[in-house]
Amino acid sequence: MAIVTLLTDSGESDHYVAAVKARIIRINPAIRIEDISHNIRALDIAHGAYVLRSVFRDFPAGTVHLVGVASTGNRDDNFVALQLEDHLFVGCDNGLFSLISDHPVQQVVKLTLPQDASSTFPERDVFAAAAARLAGGTPLSELGTPQEAVKKLIDRQVKATRKQIVGNVIRVDGMGNIITNIQRGTFELLSKGKNFTVQFGGEKFRRIHTSYQQAEQGECFLVFNSLNLLEIGIFKGNASELLGLSYDSSVNIAFDE
Amino acid sequence: MAIVTLLTDSGESDHYVAAVKARIIRINPAIRIEDISHNIRALDIAHGAYVLRSVFRDFPAGTVHLVGVASTGNRDDNFVALQLEDHLFVGCDNGLFSLISDHPVQQVVKLTLPQDASSTFPERDVFAAAAARLAGGTPLSELGTPQEAVKKLIDRQVKATRKQIVGNVIRVDGMGNIITNIQRGTFELLSKGKNFTVQFGGEKFRRIHTSYQQAEQGECFLVFNSLNLLEIGIFKGNASELLGLSYDSSVNIAFDE
Amino acid sequence: MAIVTLLTDSGESDHYVAAVKARIIRINPAIRIEDISHNIRALDIAHGAYVLRSVFRDFPAGTVHLVGVASTGNRDDNFVALQLEDHLFVGCDNGLFSLISDHPVQQVVKLTLPQDASSTFPERDVFAAAAARLAGGTPLSELGTPQEAVKKLIDRQVKATRKQIVGNVIRVDGMGNIITNIQRGTFELLSKGKNFTVQFGGEKFRRIHTSYQQAEQGECFLVFNSLNLLEIGIFKGNASELLGLSYDSSVNIAFDE
Repeated sequence: MAIVTLLTDSGESDHYVAAVKARIIRINPAIRIEDISHNIRALDIAHGAYVLRSVFRDFPAGTVHLVGVASTGNRDDNFVALQLEDHLFVGCDNGLFSLISDHPVQQVVKLTLPQDASSTFPERDVFAAAAARLAGGTPLSELGTPQEAVKKLIDRQVKATRKQIVGNVIRVDGMGNIITNIQRGTFELLSKGKNFTVQFGGEKFRRIHTSYQQAEQGECFLVFNSLNLLEIGIFKGNASELLGLSYDSSVNIAFDE
Repeated sequence: MAIVTLLTDSGESDHYVAAVKARIIRINPAIRIEDISHNIRALDIAHGAYVLRSVFRDFPAGTVHLVGVASTGNRDDNFVALQLEDHLFVGCDNGLFSLISDHPVQQVVKLTLPQDASSTFPERDVFAAAAARLAGGTPLSELGTPQEAVKKLIDRQVKATRKQIVGNVIRVDGMGNIITNIQRGTFELLSKGKNFTVQFGGEKFRRIHTSYQQAEQGECFLVFNSLNLLEIGIFKGNASELLGLSYDSSVNIAFDE
Repeated sequence: MAIVTLLTDSGESDHYVAAVKARIIRINPAIRIEDISHNIRALDIAHGAYVLRSVFRDFPAGTVHLVGVASTGNRDDNFVALQLEDHLFVGCDNGLFSLISDHPVQQVVKLTLPQDASSTFPERDVFAAAAARLAGGTPLSELGTPQEAVKKLIDRQVKATRKQIVGNVIRVDGMGNIITNIQRGTFELLSKGKNFTVQFGGEKFRRIHTSYQQAEQGECFLVFNSLNLLEIGIFKGNASELLGLSYDSSVNIAFDE
């Protein structure tokens, strides 16, 4: 089954998303279209990359992901299609694709633009057709000219030593839970059973839970979540508001000597 | 046709909803997935129950309803699948299911958890597979171990006597209309053609309309709505704001002697 | 393939949209249902008409568009089904349909109401069945009694002379871009290569770009967008907030002598 997912910063109060879907349906009505989100903050590449990275692998290999986040990009950004971890992606080469995987891109082409493409709505006029053709089995190489790589953006990196891990908040989700870029693997490699202190805002914690339910109502919990990232929440509360943490806030883990 | 509906408090700005859909599609791509809402207020069991109760019967019998509202629940809440009014439901046994029907649950099982289920995302790791299997025809009994009943929560009850009906606001909808728990049947049983006064906030009304359009623009209307519940609105206005009523506000009907 | 699109002002926090979909699925499970938007501002016919006008032609001819915007309308508004530009529409005859096309309506019928239709939820009780039947091939004439025309509302008209074009903002989209009712055709007819000044708020511009990317970051751009309407934006910014323009604000183009 051919699947195209949609991820945009278009919002849901305009015709933009439906126009993209209509274009895909006209080209190939057998395609199943699934929304990932249309509520990515306008032009927020980090938000879009976080959501895409967190979910694209849940879809079957070969799924086509149409990405319309900050699509009008910069002057020199190309429109591209690419293969990565056996998934296919179509969108603007604004750096977002470099943030969704640590694996190398398998193939990338600069899309050939249709003659009648308006310059203001590439999701409909460029990406929809490319995605529909890919989902229908057209090889990537027929959609444009080979390009060597995708544009690279550098994520905030975790700084990890034997003494401490210094990370950041990369997402506050809709429930107010705080997701950091500190990975379970990094923590386990460095902690080696040592005691530790997790610090953020003015708070200190000496335990990471294995489930939300180990906290009492209104209490802070720390878990490695389903993405294996350190997540901070308040059981039955809004952690971001209550702890005063937001995007990019610092979160540290110090290991005892 | 196999249908799975989704009702969650996950919001639409994260990967959560798409991750659930992707899991269902991987298990059985023939399933039709329909969103009920993902904008249930975080952890609000009453809101989720009201929306589910208002719509599940509109779907064909045998539809599977995946409910991800307050799913991480309390420490001792099970994950369950159940049959009720010939519909199937999957979710956390946090009391929500006791609020959607006056009929007894036909069958309920405590779900057997997959080995690799993360504890923080049961909608994807537990509910999606259970819903997909149910929609594909797997009997409820194969998904877990029998449980006697679902957890009971008690709804705000209407107090009804020959003299008056005392009810409450159970939902303010997106248009600002106020929905109460006063049922048409209760009203008709007790009114028997008597005159009456409906009271809420500082307002008094002596008439219940049969359609919105009987009110003038900007005027208050009272109707028994499509759910046979007393609804208060302002024709072409926002009743909740203008009348100062919100969730749980009291609404009374007094019958003349 | 039978397609029904949905456009409503119901929001996404209630059961309303799902109830409409469930009704359609029960009548004809082979229908593909596509959301246009459910976030039209409550009762805002201009917003609904703008979105529908901007997208309906992108769907295949014969698509059925169910419109639930300001559906409870006024006392004397009929519920109608109609054909226009070879698309089919179902909704309340509140004037919206007169705003979506300059072409004459091909056929319009006043819908015969089902016996058990509640008066408060026409989208589910009247429109869903009509849309499903139309999508399944039932001729328009079988759904009701012929009506001569649809109710007319008059849009804000552009005033155009050889000296100037005086238009208005008709939509601020979710990104803050400002869409006006000044059409590319009108501009090209009158400008004939003359120099010109575009004025709005306190701002003056002497150039219309051909793409967003011609502006610098934070700079204002003017383009004829994918609907061939003059659009004003800030490259990587929110134009409505920064320029202080909103719905109905005046935008003028004066031609040099």
